[in-house]
Amino acid sequence: METTQMTEKLNQVITPQQLLTHWQGHRALTRRVIEAFPEDKLSDYTIGGMRPFIGLIAELIDLAEGGVEGLATGNWKSAEEWGHVTGNGPKTKEELLAKWDEVTEKINLFFPQITEDNFQDSVLAFGQYEGTVISMILYFIDNENHHRGQSYVYLRSLGINPPFFWER
Amino acid sequence: METTQMTEKLNQVITPQQLLTHWQGHRALTRRVIEAFPEDKLSDYTIGGMRPFIGLIAELIDLAEGGVEGLATGNWKSAEEWGHVTGNGPKTKEELLAKWDEVTEKINLFFPQITEDNFQDSVLAFGQYEGTVISMILYFIDNENHHRGQSYVYLRSLGINPPFFWER
Repeated sequence: METTQMTEKLNQVITPQQLLTHWQGHRALTRRVIEAFPEDKLSDYTIGGMRPFIGLIAELIDLAEGGVEGLATGNWKSAEEWGHVTGNGPKTKEELLAKWDEVTEKINLFFPQITEDNFQDSVLAFGQYEGTVISMILYFIDNENHHRGQSYVYLRSLGINPPFFWER
Repeated sequence: METTQMTEKLNQVITPQQLLTHWQGHRALTRRVIEAFPEDKLSDYTIGGMRPFIGLIAELIDLAEGGVEGLATGNWKSAEEWGHVTGNGPKTKEELLAKWDEVTEKINLFFPQITEDNFQDSVLAFGQYEGTVISMILYFIDNENHHRGQSYVYLRSLGINPPFFWER
């Protein structure tokens, strides 16, 4: 039994711990992008009619915070409760970073409650998105990556060098 | 034995086939971004001194093409061989899409040669990047996502609506 479990672990495509580390590596990079972003451009700088940086980050905070708790516990908060997009979220860079760190801790707390047997389970995330647990986690990571990539263009267009993408 | 294999498969965080589908889903989205990009802006449009769109896509083609073959076979081509970045790659949108489709097929051919037991193996990708097979595949996907996110800003700034991010 012990041996079987070891075998299962070793031939995993990715282990839960590796996936958590991968996610938190992305979040550490996004945190550096928040740090690099000029305070006075957080809310009013845009390209091509897109959301300002703070709107992108608010979405990432909401998805990660509501998402990891929902996946781990089945408790999905309503849009109003987790909705920084409704304007109740952090406004300054300091507040953004503090909230970011709070969510980082929350992920470290809730993620390990998702057991190896749960990743293929079907869920209705936020009461409306159908998929498996693993598909949701990948979506949260991908969505962060997508919007962070956009933030890199914002930074470059402001003459600021973003952090290296490959450093996590 | 049959039962054990089934069990291993079912409690995987993600299966090889799911990871392949995930990657190809991202690639299908990037293909739609290539289709949406104006031909006359492929090579000369930039924001903040970044590479033009064709340069971003050339990198994605090189990484995916050289990467999947290297991971599956251990045969890493030199930078010159796989280097569209050196200027030997596709120039027009038609050529880009044709090359993209060629790489899609190549991934479908080589990816299944990476067995479940290989994802945790250490590799020196392209003869210079240390990591595991799974970390490399995630890097290829993340890097595509990152640059595609940047391409969304290019498109928006040109007044063009990009394809929906969540449609794969």
